[in-house]
Amino acid sequence: MRLADQGLRNIELAESQMGALMEVQKELKKSKIFKGLRIGMALHVTKETAVLVKTLIAGGAEIWITGCNPLSTQDDIAAALAKSGVHVYAHKGENTKEYYEFLNDVIAGKPHITIDDGCDLVSEIHKNHKGLIPSLIGGCEETTTGIIRLKAMEKDKALKYPIVAVNDNLTKHLMDNYYGTGQSTLDGIMRASNFLFTGKVCVVAGYGDCGKGVALRLKGLGANVIVTEVKPFRALQAVRDGYRVMPMKEAAVIGDLFITVTGDVDVLTYDHVKLMKEGAILCNSGHFDCEIDVDGIKKKSKKVREMRPFMDEYTVEGGSLGTGGKKIYILGDGRLVNLAAAEGHPSDVMSLSFCGQVFACKYLVENKGRLKPAVYTLPEDIDIYISELQLRVMGVKIDKLTPAQEKYLASWESGT
Amino acid sequence: MRLADQGLRNIELAESQMGALMEVQKELKKSKIFKGLRIGMALHVTKETAVLVKTLIAGGAEIWITGCNPLSTQDDIAAALAKSGVHVYAHKGENTKEYYEFLNDVIAGKPHITIDDGCDLVSEIHKNHKGLIPSLIGGCEETTTGIIRLKAMEKDKALKYPIVAVNDNLTKHLMDNYYGTGQSTLDGIMRASNFLFTGKVCVVAGYGDCGKGVALRLKGLGANVIVTEVKPFRALQAVRDGYRVMPMKEAAVIGDLFITVTGDVDVLTYDHVKLMKEGAILCNSGHFDCEIDVDGIKKKSKKVREMRPFMDEYTVEGGSLGTGGKKIYILGDGRLVNLAAAEGHPSDVMSLSFCGQVFACKYLVENKGRLKPAVYTLPEDIDIYISELQLRVMGVKIDKLTPAQEKYLASWESGT
Amino acid sequence: MRLADQGLRNIELAESQMGALMEVQKELKKSKIFKGLRIGMALHVTKETAVLVKTLIAGGAEIWITGCNPLSTQDDIAAALAKSGVHVYAHKGENTKEYYEFLNDVIAGKPHITIDDGCDLVSEIHKNHKGLIPSLIGGCEETTTGIIRLKAMEKDKALKYPIVAVNDNLTKHLMDNYYGTGQSTLDGIMRASNFLFTGKVCVVAGYGDCGKGVALRLKGLGANVIVTEVKPFRALQAVRDGYRVMPMKEAAVIGDLFITVTGDVDVLTYDHVKLMKEGAILCNSGHFDCEIDVDGIKKKSKKVREMRPFMDEYTVEGGSLGTGGKKIYILGDGRLVNLAAAEGHPSDVMSLSFCGQVFACKYLVENKGRLKPAVYTLPEDIDIYISELQLRVMGVKIDKLTPAQEKYLASWESGT
Amino acid sequence: MRLADQGLRNIELAESQMGALMEVQKELKKSKIFKGLRIGMALHVTKETAVLVKTLIAGGAEIWITGCNPLSTQDDIAAALAKSGVHVYAHKGENTKEYYEFLNDVIAGKPHITIDDGCDLVSEIHKNHKGLIPSLIGGCEETTTGIIRLKAMEKDKALKYPIVAVNDNLTKHLMDNYYGTGQSTLDGIMRASNFLFTGKVCVVAGYGDCGKGVALRLKGLGANVIVTEVKPFRALQAVRDGYRVMPMKEAAVIGDLFITVTGDVDVLTYDHVKLMKEGAILCNSGHFDCEIDVDGIKKKSKKVREMRPFMDEYTVEGGSLGTGGKKIYILGDGRLVNLAAAEGHPSDVMSLSFCGQVFACKYLVENKGRLKPAVYTLPEDIDIYISELQLRVMGVKIDKLTPAQEKYLASWESGT
Repeated sequence: MRLADQGLRNIELAESQMGALMEVQKELKKSKIFKGLRIGMALHVTKETAVLVKTLIAGGAEIWITGCNPLSTQDDIAAALAKSGVHVYAHKGENTKEYYEFLNDVIAGKPHITIDDGCDLVSEIHKNHKGLIPSLIGGCEETTTGIIRLKAMEKDKALKYPIVAVNDNLTKHLMDNYYGTGQSTLDGIMRASNFLFTGKVCVVAGYGDCGKGVALRLKGLGANVIVTEVKPFRALQAVRDGYRVMPMKEAAVIGDLFITVTGDVDVLTYDHVKLMKEGAILCNSGHFDCEIDVDGIKKKSKKVREMRPFMDEYTVEGGSLGTGGKKIYILGDGRLVNLAAAEGHPSDVMSLSFCGQVFACKYLVENKGRLKPAVYTLPEDIDIYISELQLRVMGVKIDKLTPAQEKYLASWESGT
Repeated sequence: MRLADQGLRNIELAESQMGALMEVQKELKKSKIFKGLRIGMALHVTKETAVLVKTLIAGGAEIWITGCNPLSTQDDIAAALAKSGVHVYAHKGENTKEYYEFLNDVIAGKPHITIDDGCDLVSEIHKNHKGLIPSLIGGCEETTTGIIRLKAMEKDKALKYPIVAVNDNLTKHLMDNYYGTGQSTLDGIMRASNFLFTGKVCVVAGYGDCGKGVALRLKGLGANVIVTEVKPFRALQAVRDGYRVMPMKEAAVIGDLFITVTGDVDVLTYDHVKLMKEGAILCNSGHFDCEIDVDGIKKKSKKVREMRPFMDEYTVEGGSLGTGGKKIYILGDGRLVNLAAAEGHPSDVMSLSFCGQVFACKYLVENKGRLKPAVYTLPEDIDIYISELQLRVMGVKIDKLTPAQEKYLASWESGT
Repeated sequence: MRLADQGLRNIELAESQMGALMEVQKELKKSKIFKGLRIGMALHVTKETAVLVKTLIAGGAEIWITGCNPLSTQDDIAAALAKSGVHVYAHKGENTKEYYEFLNDVIAGKPHITIDDGCDLVSEIHKNHKGLIPSLIGGCEETTTGIIRLKAMEKDKALKYPIVAVNDNLTKHLMDNYYGTGQSTLDGIMRASNFLFTGKVCVVAGYGDCGKGVALRLKGLGANVIVTEVKPFRALQAVRDGYRVMPMKEAAVIGDLFITVTGDVDVLTYDHVKLMKEGAILCNSGHFDCEIDVDGIKKKSKKVREMRPFMDEYTVEGGSLGTGGKKIYILGDGRLVNLAAAEGHPSDVMSLSFCGQVFACKYLVENKGRLKPAVYTLPEDIDIYISELQLRVMGVKIDKLTPAQEKYLASWESGT
Repeated sequence: MRLADQGLRNIELAESQMGALMEVQKELKKSKIFKGLRIGMALHVTKETAVLVKTLIAGGAEIWITGCNPLSTQDDIAAALAKSGVHVYAHKGENTKEYYEFLNDVIAGKPHITIDDGCDLVSEIHKNHKGLIPSLIGGCEETTTGIIRLKAMEKDKALKYPIVAVNDNLTKHLMDNYYGTGQSTLDGIMRASNFLFTGKVCVVAGYGDCGKGVALRLKGLGANVIVTEVKPFRALQAVRDGYRVMPMKEAAVIGDLFITVTGDVDVLTYDHVKLMKEGAILCNSGHFDCEIDVDGIKKKSKKVREMRPFMDEYTVEGGSLGTGGKKIYILGDGRLVNLAAAEGHPSDVMSLSFCGQVFACKYLVENKGRLKPAVYTLPEDIDIYISELQLRVMGVKIDKLTPAQEKYLASWESGT
């Protein structure tokens, strides 16, 4: 319960940073648009998610929630939510078996809407709870990784209810993935390892929105950044942004720190570890814990030792004479380092993402019965509205087009 | 003719920096895919454009070309092209009457394909040469500004032949607008005024790709950057990127330098000039010369004086006692400062844009007769191919997905 | 004792990052130059300091150590040192009375050499243990703040034994103050508050080496930085570096975050808090806890509440209607935020500072009896040697002057 | 004379940017402190130098001036000065013989004070005009390079009259060398070659104030920067600042652009050129034209061709098959690229340097007869005063220490 009190204070702090979402909460308190609705959520159980939960409740919904990553739950928040009467099933460090039990606990709440971060809830329902599908209005998905899986389902005609790709909101993926992942990844690395960035060779695998944000902040903290990519255009962007680009096999030899943000598997394996320098640090900020092949590396290691919370030392073949092997370090067991070792994105980043979640739920409710099983992007006005809310909260004023300027943009007659 | 020799040497230098386009040129020399084709162009007549012209000629085309901006023609290049037998109609500093005469000279060549930068050729044909339309295979448009006009035409059902929006290529608008405009704008300002950026308050109007690039480079040269915008999401991006955002009326009071990159009219007018500090410098890098209301400012000025090439002093009401008025400066007469006062984008930026132009022409030829009058975006593979060419030219190698990684991305079954 | 085990593992990690100091340790193991020497230390009791302690012991010294800041002791390290037989007197959160008792415990060890961080040990000896002075070989001081106090003592003829200003080493003050404080301050802020930097107005008070480093990293994380200064030249540097510069009374109104790094008192007081926005965060990274007048602010507050470790909420007059007051936050009770809320500088920064401490002790021993009571700077070769050690550890090779180049530099005859 | 008119307008523009120097000019107009004094100058003959000349004349001095670099004279300025009655001996592109004749023309004016940029005037007087020395009050030197030569003279007891090292002013070397050289070097490269920085490997030889500024601006324009150094501490700074550091022989292989800023000879020779990539560009911003061994490279070249003003192509052994050799480019003939190809530092940078020159002359006059032949640094107040002038001109206000704060800084009693 002391935990719950700390959780309540943390939620209070989050609210003070999530002005746009608090504005939406006020609107929902009046409209009660989610009255009678059951929402099942698999999101990182953080102080920011708690504010989303409170916002949906303000709109009339009842909430069942579990985590979407075994290491990302903030226990004080789970306690605070539980104390407030939310159906919450999560604790930090849960094992895989518990993870899936908790997903099923949420599904047992018979949700009308699902909110996912990585598509595990949707996937579990499609695999083992098909009976629930007719009563589902729709779902919302938070991440690029989830969208990739959902688009694959859609292509395979396996998707059976409509999903809003909240990740596609500009106010989500250009804010959360870029600015949020940028800062919180480095925050997680510092808390886990107290690593000095300046002057170090730091390797970022993947140059999507997350990778761009991580690389930018690494540079901002003084690192010498190398990017690895599989897509030619992104590789070219990374070069033009002043980074070195090379295959991971070459980067492995010179890197001090490796961060995976690809959304794919086996980006770092024992084959790479073999090439690395003594003392190299590996971590993942890309969604699932399969980007680094932790199990494979563990199997080939002579010794594994927890040096401090979220920082394990792996002793493998090689290293200097007489030291008994080469030591490399993996943070947060290869899970999302920003959530495992720190607190995820700062509150004001999540404020915009979660405004998007609320408007996605609203869109599903308002279009109930009219949407086919497919992946949907929200209309542009929602991004504009969320942006306006946030600018207002920050006290930023901008220009408006004059009628003459609007007319000019709409015409094609005037030239040079 | 000494001019033509200088032009030939400049073209040679450009070729040495445009490796990707030179690779395309080699392919065209074999395929001769443009044999018998007449292409009419209204592009900035620069050394890079000359390499595009030579590339299209290598593919079998015959070329008619004029400039797309009265101040952007590099006279040595025009001379070199003329000497090589190209039909070229352009000189630096041409007046508006000449500008339109030259457009008509190009149209008189009865082109099968038009290549535009700002849509003036398309617009002139639609207004005054409708008879030419049936024999036109299609057109290519280089700029955001042109696309805005073309989409307006399309919406009004006024567009009568198909146009490829080359600007929509990632390898064009994310390279040229962002990296190209970023550097070349500051280059133009330095050549015109020898302005010191570090420590100065620099105001960027517009935070699209061009504005983002300009703001980034201003920051890179030490400026304190203010952004003005009309779109809420872009304004929010600018704030998150660390810039101050405010209405132009407020920025006008504190700025040392003002750069317009909006694509709209009357972004800076006498009403803003009235608020400015003594010594403020105004310039445009946004396409047409209507972003700054130069005529309006001139009318209200007590005196206008050319201080050095491409830098005019305007004396207006106000200023310190006894100085006879407040002095502000406008660069390049409000026309594109990077082309008026410098050389436009560096060659290797244009290399990718112009690969896009060649592939757009190829697309039009290959799809002759199958395309309705509309604005088209090229398929994604072309961007991938251009990126690969450029990476190869730079000697950059990247990773490839393993089969296991491809399979993972295509599947939706494996989760946390 | 579980604490001691964690401490030992943290020290092991620190050693892996402190290659240059470990090289020095190897040399000392052979030379035993400190044999029979008692060294009294008042330094932050961190894992890096533990490596310094072990290095001095390797050279033959016996060590008495206490902290130099009530909040900066890492308890696991104190436990590990105690377990290893070092005389250690420190725990995190000690009160002022304990603080001075512990200083006296160290002095009771009758040190031949003192090592200080902020001059408290020197000051206490001069005030209350004058009898010890004849047997003192000398002292070493780590910080700018300490040097300011020592120079004041020297000027007043109050200084009674020689002190080496280790802070004056380039490898100390240009590395530790700039790169170290830069990163670790932001680290402390993130751990205490999970603050998002990007897009926020962050105010840095003081633009010395520490302030320059903090401002650079704030910019690197996307903040919009304001600098306040009292020295004209530094203010000019800050302007030229692209920051806004203004008096604190003006900055107070617009800042989201305030960081003091001046070395002076009352930089932020209730008079400033009155002007601040709801939610403003205040912290100090400047040495002593007097930069923010925490007591004064506390007295004027209606309510003070610990929101989470190292983050207190102060409710003062003002704020929005009906909220009961304006809330502002102070981190780490106004003490050094990087040590209170995080782990101080990363190990590889401290490695160079502490090489300097070792060489300062060596210099004092080698010049025993020859030095007057004054503040000394080490000869330049020591900086060169430390730099070479660190470059070697990082595997960086550099050029050497050719004889012709050396000759050219030494001559004055050859000109244009 | 049209040239003189252009020169006058350029000087007027410079005055509008040199507010601090114009304030000093106002003071001198009243004090006439230089009445009856003859000053001989060897400075880059630029619009900013013209404002210095006018300022000294305002104080009562008579001026003889020549350039200090055969390529740096702005002919319109020389014409304007001549028209105003100044004894000016300089034109752009003068040969070495003319260069020394012009130095002697200035010496023939029998100066009481010399102002040098690179020590050529002092050196020439010591070699060939010893008779002038008794009547010389003293000299002023602008550059690091000059100071190195003067200190060598001082050490050899060869220096025969007192010199003020204006370069040692913080307001000179931390402004001019760092911010000035940073921007103007890149400006010169762009004007000479239209080089794109972003994504290019750019090698900076030397990491002093000039090298730091150049590297920072290269990074700011998107380059991937490599630094070469001979001093370990500077090399370490470069590493910590995020750059790659390596010997020039290794950098030569991968660089696209090479900039020398060392103050030494033979930094780039044919041995390096042999290792370079096709198309590499070499330039110097370090003072004398001996940093790149242009003559040595020329001798080994198969062909040398001027491609455009200030950009020569050298064809050497190697390169792709069938191209007849490898082509590399040297800008501005190896002379200072910012002055050869652009306009030197922007006016507001030079404003502070030249305030320093004026105060150095004043210092010499006020201490006439009291100074031994040695190299002097001006007292700190002059830097403070110049900084205050500049802040006032920019409208920047700063804080003042309270009495309590001053007392705290002066005391050593209060501690933790």
